[in-house]
Amino acid sequence: MSHTAELIAVGTELLLGNIANTNAQVLSQSLSALGVNVFWHTVVGDNPDRLKEALEIARRRADVIITTGGLGPTYDDLTKQTICEAFGKPLVLHPDILEDIRAFYESAVHVPMPENNTQQAELPEDCAVFDNPVGTAPGCAFEAEGVHVLMLPGPPHEMETMLRRHVEPYLRKLSHEVIVSRDIMTFGMGESSVDELLHEKMAHMTNPTLATYAKPCEVRLRATAKAATEEEARAMLAPVERMVLDTLGDIVYGVDMMDLAACCHAQLIRRNMTLATAESCTGGLVAEKLTAIPGASTIYRGGVVSYWTSIKADVLGVPQELLDAYGPVSEPCARAMAEGVRKITGADLGVSVTGSAGPTADERGVPVGIVYIGLAAPGGTFCRSLDMGRRRRDRIQGLAANHAFDVVRRYLQGLPIEHI
Amino acid sequence: MSHTAELIAVGTELLLGNIANTNAQVLSQSLSALGVNVFWHTVVGDNPDRLKEALEIARRRADVIITTGGLGPTYDDLTKQTICEAFGKPLVLHPDILEDIRAFYESAVHVPMPENNTQQAELPEDCAVFDNPVGTAPGCAFEAEGVHVLMLPGPPHEMETMLRRHVEPYLRKLSHEVIVSRDIMTFGMGESSVDELLHEKMAHMTNPTLATYAKPCEVRLRATAKAATEEEARAMLAPVERMVLDTLGDIVYGVDMMDLAACCHAQLIRRNMTLATAESCTGGLVAEKLTAIPGASTIYRGGVVSYWTSIKADVLGVPQELLDAYGPVSEPCARAMAEGVRKITGADLGVSVTGSAGPTADERGVPVGIVYIGLAAPGGTFCRSLDMGRRRRDRIQGLAANHAFDVVRRYLQGLPIEHI
Repeated sequence: MSHTAELIAVGTELLLGNIANTNAQVLSQSLSALGVNVFWHTVVGDNPDRLKEALEIARRRADVIITTGGLGPTYDDLTKQTICEAFGKPLVLHPDILEDIRAFYESAVHVPMPENNTQQAELPEDCAVFDNPVGTAPGCAFEAEGVHVLMLPGPPHEMETMLRRHVEPYLRKLSHEVIVSRDIMTFGMGESSVDELLHEKMAHMTNPTLATYAKPCEVRLRATAKAATEEEARAMLAPVERMVLDTLGDIVYGVDMMDLAACCHAQLIRRNMTLATAESCTGGLVAEKLTAIPGASTIYRGGVVSYWTSIKADVLGVPQELLDAYGPVSEPCARAMAEGVRKITGADLGVSVTGSAGPTADERGVPVGIVYIGLAAPGGTFCRSLDMGRRRRDRIQGLAANHAFDVVRRYLQGLPIEHI
Repeated sequence: MSHTAELIAVGTELLLGNIANTNAQVLSQSLSALGVNVFWHTVVGDNPDRLKEALEIARRRADVIITTGGLGPTYDDLTKQTICEAFGKPLVLHPDILEDIRAFYESAVHVPMPENNTQQAELPEDCAVFDNPVGTAPGCAFEAEGVHVLMLPGPPHEMETMLRRHVEPYLRKLSHEVIVSRDIMTFGMGESSVDELLHEKMAHMTNPTLATYAKPCEVRLRATAKAATEEEARAMLAPVERMVLDTLGDIVYGVDMMDLAACCHAQLIRRNMTLATAESCTGGLVAEKLTAIPGASTIYRGGVVSYWTSIKADVLGVPQELLDAYGPVSEPCARAMAEGVRKITGADLGVSVTGSAGPTADERGVPVGIVYIGLAAPGGTFCRSLDMGRRRRDRIQGLAANHAFDVVRRYLQGLPIEHI
């Protein structure tokens, strides 16, 4: 039997927008992997009446309620008291927990425990105690009237530690299903076009399911299967994955992969090749995305941000006559930039981006959204020409960077490069 | 009269934990600045029954309901239909919006509009239309039975653009108070230290208020005043701003400024100077942050990402003997990189970053977190040495980039550079 959970985050700082409710995201990922349905997230302030209202609503529509926050030592931390009142449970002082908190203060903080921390050692009668090795507030869980109530601390690292140590084992005991997901990553087609191609097949699927998620400049498809064992779930996913690959073809660049930069990183490592970058309108974004990956130095030698035209000539060695004849935003310039950076760095591949990211047309009148991607490789020099139209500057930059990665991965996979 | 808002985010991807509900955070900050109380955030999946339930609950306890998500062109985007049913409003096709969407497709994406985008041009009868300059889904607002219902798209950049353009003016008309905020930006001190310095003064303030917001690597202070007129509110903020400047001194780099990169951009324009970058461990991040600013080419010439040591020698001209003697992560190398990039680009200032971002110590055993920032300028060459400790790679990179900007802005403002 599937369980249904509601997550209730308690904290006025969330309602003021001081922080985002990342605890709900982390918990949802974990619950989804455990086969627990999450149909609701609720955020409520440090206010006992509104928390009580949230609990009354949640207990009618969920059989697992998980709260985060409001377990601290201050007067506005009211989660435990309010939950105990709502579920008719007395709060009981646990002397052993009080000793743990006192010891935590003395060993980790080197000060005596403030007296208001005593209330952190009070927990609902007959609950499972979740100890907190990275903070003072223990969590806990109890079952009442068919509802499991779990209370976790608010600070994300305390919540996450308790989630792995206590919550996941607790919930695993309640469930008999395993959920497995695969993310199929695509680049080069908009969400509505992907949706149109797959809609008929997706509409009839219940297990596995297939859903599209658009990120700026790419679309991810998530296939999810529920089964009794992980092996069985994986076997159910294989034909879905095959169907998507057959339908979408080579716009699929990987499965369970972070992004296009990670795809290039992996492909370059596999082929023992190195890359260099020459960027104009992306201004270092391609380099930055590559070097965000730990271990990037294995495959990335470095690059040049040739923002001014003079740097294209002086540092990358783009011939001045070429720049005069075609301008810096042109196919010949993109090719020469890629060849130039390949030469000065000694990398196997040089990739270049030059274009007009806006907000206004460049000095030679090239309209916003015109971008050229060059690739200098052992197999020759290539160029992809793009017209992205009048989008926002950051969108043009992000999309251009992804096209640069796509050109590299298509070269490495032996696919057509210049047109997709 | 104060209004009370409930935010309802619609999207199964939130309940699966694929993304965090950052829209709720951004909206909450804005509503709080406008004097609108936010007592509830709710997240619900792409499910019309549960969305209807959320709306029924929300209309009982709030007089402003703001939804995000579910306005897309695909079959599971059901927000408009569900809201119209719940509030008894018919959906009406707006031919002018349909033309806008068709034009967006043709000019920006260069493909004919897919037919399922037609439903994005259907909006509730008698609503205020919020146009979407950065996407296809328009938003809208209507009032029914004393409740204002606002529908916004889910992609964060579309939501935020619409928030500034339409939602804030719409809500401002509902209120009779004016709220004015000033953001005082600081770099170089942790949130708890800033808090300690200001805590006593902040504790007694009710109007204006002063709150600290920590971002990775910097702390923003927001002073907010409520008054009958904007002029009056501004007059109330002036002494608060003065008090903060007196207390924190030159760690304040600006007021109402986006970030340190924007601060450098403004300072360089004012002095009619240009900058070039030489980056190792930040891998293009400094360049990328500068070129994200429209009009960056006025002050930014370009740079080199010298990720491999050979590129420091071959492209930047760092002497091989210096690299052999001190290694690439060293103060002499940072100085030579800054001088080298200044020379090859002809910029007025060259700034460099070299360091060990991890996850492991560099090949010469320099521990993770050691970073050097070099600055070559008309007034000489400077270096700031930093030990950031064993932080996460992306934190070290982000902090190092901010130190590079801080070194530049301090040079331009005539402040001490090497130690802060």
